[in-house]
Amino acid sequence: MREVAVIGVGIHKWGELWEKSLRDMYVESALNAIKDAGVDKIDSMYVGCMSSGLFTGQEHIASVLADYMGLNPIPACRVESACASGGLALRQGFIEVASGMSDVVLVSGVEKMTDVDGNAATYALGTAADQEYECYNGATFPGLYALIARAHMEKYGTTLEQMADVAVKNHDNGSHNPNAQYQFKVTRDQVMGSTLIADPLRILHCSGITDGAAAAILVPLDMAKSMAKGPVIKITGSGHATDTIALHSRKDMTFLNATAVAAERAYKMAGVGPKDIDFAEVHDCFSIAEICVSEALGFFENGQGGPAAEAGKTRIGGEIPINPSGGLKAKGHPVGATGIAQIHEVVEQLRGAEGDRAIKNAKRGLTQNMGGTGGSALVHILEVV
Amino acid sequence: MREVAVIGVGIHKWGELWEKSLRDMYVESALNAIKDAGVDKIDSMYVGCMSSGLFTGQEHIASVLADYMGLNPIPACRVESACASGGLALRQGFIEVASGMSDVVLVSGVEKMTDVDGNAATYALGTAADQEYECYNGATFPGLYALIARAHMEKYGTTLEQMADVAVKNHDNGSHNPNAQYQFKVTRDQVMGSTLIADPLRILHCSGITDGAAAAILVPLDMAKSMAKGPVIKITGSGHATDTIALHSRKDMTFLNATAVAAERAYKMAGVGPKDIDFAEVHDCFSIAEICVSEALGFFENGQGGPAAEAGKTRIGGEIPINPSGGLKAKGHPVGATGIAQIHEVVEQLRGAEGDRAIKNAKRGLTQNMGGTGGSALVHILEVV
Repeated sequence: MREVAVIGVGIHKWGELWEKSLRDMYVESALNAIKDAGVDKIDSMYVGCMSSGLFTGQEHIASVLADYMGLNPIPACRVESACASGGLALRQGFIEVASGMSDVVLVSGVEKMTDVDGNAATYALGTAADQEYECYNGATFPGLYALIARAHMEKYGTTLEQMADVAVKNHDNGSHNPNAQYQFKVTRDQVMGSTLIADPLRILHCSGITDGAAAAILVPLDMAKSMAKGPVIKITGSGHATDTIALHSRKDMTFLNATAVAAERAYKMAGVGPKDIDFAEVHDCFSIAEICVSEALGFFENGQGGPAAEAGKTRIGGEIPINPSGGLKAKGHPVGATGIAQIHEVVEQLRGAEGDRAIKNAKRGLTQNMGGTGGSALVHILEVV
Repeated sequence: MREVAVIGVGIHKWGELWEKSLRDMYVESALNAIKDAGVDKIDSMYVGCMSSGLFTGQEHIASVLADYMGLNPIPACRVESACASGGLALRQGFIEVASGMSDVVLVSGVEKMTDVDGNAATYALGTAADQEYECYNGATFPGLYALIARAHMEKYGTTLEQMADVAVKNHDNGSHNPNAQYQFKVTRDQVMGSTLIADPLRILHCSGITDGAAAAILVPLDMAKSMAKGPVIKITGSGHATDTIALHSRKDMTFLNATAVAAERAYKMAGVGPKDIDFAEVHDCFSIAEICVSEALGFFENGQGGPAAEAGKTRIGGEIPINPSGGLKAKGHPVGATGIAQIHEVVEQLRGAEGDRAIKNAKRGLTQNMGGTGGSALVHILEVV
């Protein structure tokens, strides 16, 4: 397998973008990535998108976007793994460059979520869970994560305050991110006093509904070395794993096995362990998710994710900064785009970001993106080489 | 890149299968492929599926199916390119094995189309076209192919009788296929007198709405050589290309450019040309499509696809037999599964099929699968080595 590098990233300001279509957002972020990379051709493209069918009435979305980019007849492949669709697009592009089939691959993600009403969005997001056994019987996504939260509280003594601290940290970080949907800070009291969504989760424990896109350009490492104006950033590890689609089929609802297995694979490929990671962008669709993920990735022992968040270990400047971008919580969560936006943040940090959310001397970052309640997970490790 | 072989294929009887869920059909075909291959592990899986969201209310379908196969935590990736989703699953599996990332990869396709009513199915299929500029303004899929048919008739003098002959041939072939949805023959008069759907296309010019799944197992060629009990079948060519999503954006509606470009890439990789192909399975979603495809693949000059069909050149025993399986017309067209079922037929023929639809001494077969009105296309060449 050839070694693979990221040479360009692109994004735009996320939010409720009623004036922009899915096509508009996509083209803006992809052109930003192409400009950032300085390439003059694209050999192949991947689009991560969860449900353009239910959200916008359009499938065949990779061909639509290749057309709108003026890139046809290049191969264009849409991949879907619910909220992990972006991470999956990265992995498939990585495999294509590694195989030698293509040299310059555009990997991207997009979701236009606000063109339907709240009920339709709740239904569409529910298709990431086991519809037949979970959602058709009344479960919603916040409801499923509320079950995980209750189980974690019961088993480990995790508190609602600890979960609130995850949201406070991510809003602090997001307040410095010009592309974030919610660029404001919140206090623990505000989180604890916000509207109840699915007991015990309140609205400030939850990520929002977002329109957005993100893109990155992958090339063989040798090409990156000859082109790069700044640091050369290599993808040293890629892991992908699945778990049962339904929560009730798992031995332990508090443990995200797909994330643990994907991480194990990525660490092995990169030849590193959790202690070697300088910072991480992870899938905090709900604040309890970030706690569970920080355990499954091996940053903390099982049950210690909550106390670690409370102690500030995951803040910028802490032991292992998590979600310097603001995470899904503050940056927003256009489901198909999230996994690619994580790569955007890691690349910006490894290039030596400045300002209030910069992680000093960061050389190795990790991304973790997951689908549904963890039925799929992607973990990638990026390093300055 | 490593060389890649197909060592197992699986399918089941297609049709309106109200007693079988998407999960049931999928597991049946995938287990058949695993049994046929004789493998005892699967490293990774791809699922081609066009719109499980709109047809069944379930996304995250690769994780659902990995779960139901008992295969988690293996990586599972859903790919979508409308009606070319199956062919795309094959290509992505091919790239993964070629890259060295995995050895034994399950590639598969599935679509459950009859759990919604006709209007919902028409809407879902329309998401393969340009919804904003085509379907929201009243076009349907039969309507778009009717435009192509009219243009072909106008430009080349192609006749409705020639199109009918495509359907007659494919039903002849399908009448010998025990897995086909429509195992009956039709006459030219029956086609010409059948219900008008979108002028000039009549219902017997159109493929049906089908529930079905299909699967295949890919491995490195060296592994196939050491395992195979019969002929070793190598994938010698793989091509993938896109075209404008909307018909009105094309210079010539009668020419399927994505198919032509994908074929050129597959021929180049395999080191062969159209004259070297013994038989083909192609995307006859409408009878005019098979005529256009037979031209874009280089089997006939532009405009000669209709006369060739009328002269019997594409029948079994003819110059270049097309769709010995019965094609989408008679076998059925569960959109995500079609591209993999084509591989099933090619493998069975290359293994030395017997009976009325056998192609004698076939050593090299081609598959062509396309999305929408040709906005994406996949071409693969398989050979006995």
